[in-house]
Amino acid sequence: MRKLDENWFTEVAAEAGSAFSLRLTAAGRIHEERTPYQLIEVYETEHFGRLLTIDGFVMLTERDNFLYHEMMSHPALYTHPAPRRVLIIGGGDCGTLREVLRHPEVESARQVEIDERVTRVSERFFPQLCEANSDPRAHLEFGDGIRFVKEAPAAGFDVIIVDSTDPIGPAAGLFSQAFYADCLRALDANGILVAQSESPLLHQKLLLSMHTALRGAGFLDIAVLNFPQPVYPSGWWSATMACKDAPLTGFREEDAREKPFPTRYYNAGIHTASMAAPEFLYQALAGTGPA
Amino acid sequence: MRKLDENWFTEVAAEAGSAFSLRLTAAGRIHEERTPYQLIEVYETEHFGRLLTIDGFVMLTERDNFLYHEMMSHPALYTHPAPRRVLIIGGGDCGTLREVLRHPEVESARQVEIDERVTRVSERFFPQLCEANSDPRAHLEFGDGIRFVKEAPAAGFDVIIVDSTDPIGPAAGLFSQAFYADCLRALDANGILVAQSESPLLHQKLLLSMHTALRGAGFLDIAVLNFPQPVYPSGWWSATMACKDAPLTGFREEDAREKPFPTRYYNAGIHTASMAAPEFLYQALAGTGPA
Repeated sequence: MRKLDENWFTEVAAEAGSAFSLRLTAAGRIHEERTPYQLIEVYETEHFGRLLTIDGFVMLTERDNFLYHEMMSHPALYTHPAPRRVLIIGGGDCGTLREVLRHPEVESARQVEIDERVTRVSERFFPQLCEANSDPRAHLEFGDGIRFVKEAPAAGFDVIIVDSTDPIGPAAGLFSQAFYADCLRALDANGILVAQSESPLLHQKLLLSMHTALRGAGFLDIAVLNFPQPVYPSGWWSATMACKDAPLTGFREEDAREKPFPTRYYNAGIHTASMAAPEFLYQALAGTGPA
Repeated sequence: MRKLDENWFTEVAAEAGSAFSLRLTAAGRIHEERTPYQLIEVYETEHFGRLLTIDGFVMLTERDNFLYHEMMSHPALYTHPAPRRVLIIGGGDCGTLREVLRHPEVESARQVEIDERVTRVSERFFPQLCEANSDPRAHLEFGDGIRFVKEAPAAGFDVIIVDSTDPIGPAAGLFSQAFYADCLRALDANGILVAQSESPLLHQKLLLSMHTALRGAGFLDIAVLNFPQPVYPSGWWSATMACKDAPLTGFREEDAREKPFPTRYYNAGIHTASMAAPEFLYQALAGTGPA
């Protein structure tokens, strides 16, 4: 049993009694700032490249953020028949936005992040994630995503991506039935919502409550996308995808097979595979409403 | 950034510059013994139940070992048309053996573990993993698995499961082409080999070298099974499955759907899903031989 010295960044997942650590280079912490919303820090790690944290929680590393960002965008965009108008709530590091804009069908990607500093820090320390920020289809706004959706015109978006932090602090409202109901209204008939939904192993209760809230808000069909995310607690993460009127079986598989852009994790096979429910989750979700 | 006190067990994955920790209860370490082969320890953790380590590396916890044990057994057994004779190399904690013996078709499951103490410690501290040890179909032997396979009669097994520790120390030979060639000989015509193959993210080189060695040994078809395993480095693990003469497409899906035993992770959908190759792995494996 060894103890880690001060050359490590450690995040404790108190609810799981587990911790994950990354070894830092001699540079250590290369940025730190307290915004009106949160504490943003950037570290240089030995094997995972740069690390972005908010309030001490890992947001992303250079090495493995492709898993999360690809799975937050491509499954939803290849399920919608014609995703032209995309809204991202949160997503300040701009990695999801970059993936969204790889789809040539997308005419407009609007991002509403509450803390402009997250985006500015990303532009400075994670420029590769922000390389699509200057795309003319990208519209970056900084403000309250919950209010934005509440005030958005009806049926104005094809896909809404909730790329939020954990359901505590400023992001808590992004997991509520009232917010989902506003999203439903803001989505067009074939509209799809996808939201990060924590670890299937550690946060099953949250997953179930999201299902209940999405059904309560009126979404027709719901699916959990499973994917590995080594730097998040348990290394196993999920996104929950829900559709307004069309069932989630509309995967444009041919298009995904011939996607005109490179990916590192996502492909058509992974798309389908990510929706397979582990037995324990299948049984737990069976209790949340009609299949 | 916080430091962990002495109430945590920590495993460092030096090659990844990462570490994983579990918080211990007041009981802390409840067993420790040095065998001729290795150091075996058992801890009581706060949220993951009991923890078994060998030489300081996490082997399993009560909470999440079902992922690994189910994926090391059921995909191979539901791919073989009639798995009657199973050989397990390693597997001293007996969790894989228990899963194998859930299949009524299995007539004999022989396990060859080099260190009898691993099994004795498991019987004492993880009795639920050992509940099939007294099954009359179970044959526990303690000795060198490499020599056992070399001296085994030809075509004597339907499925061989290599449930080993990492490819260092006593287990290194279990990742060699010579060992795989002996396995091939010991397998019947429809025979299937499955071996734990580390993290797709962190140990891609090992995965590729296993592919090359399996092809070199004469295996016809190879597939990687991906699954989450929170307590192993990166939280993302794999098994590599290879077949002697029949292609790996022979999944008995109907049988898996109607499996006469409970599981917590594995089901027919997960079986198929686990074989989907992430784009980076698909591209890397394309270089190791004919598809």
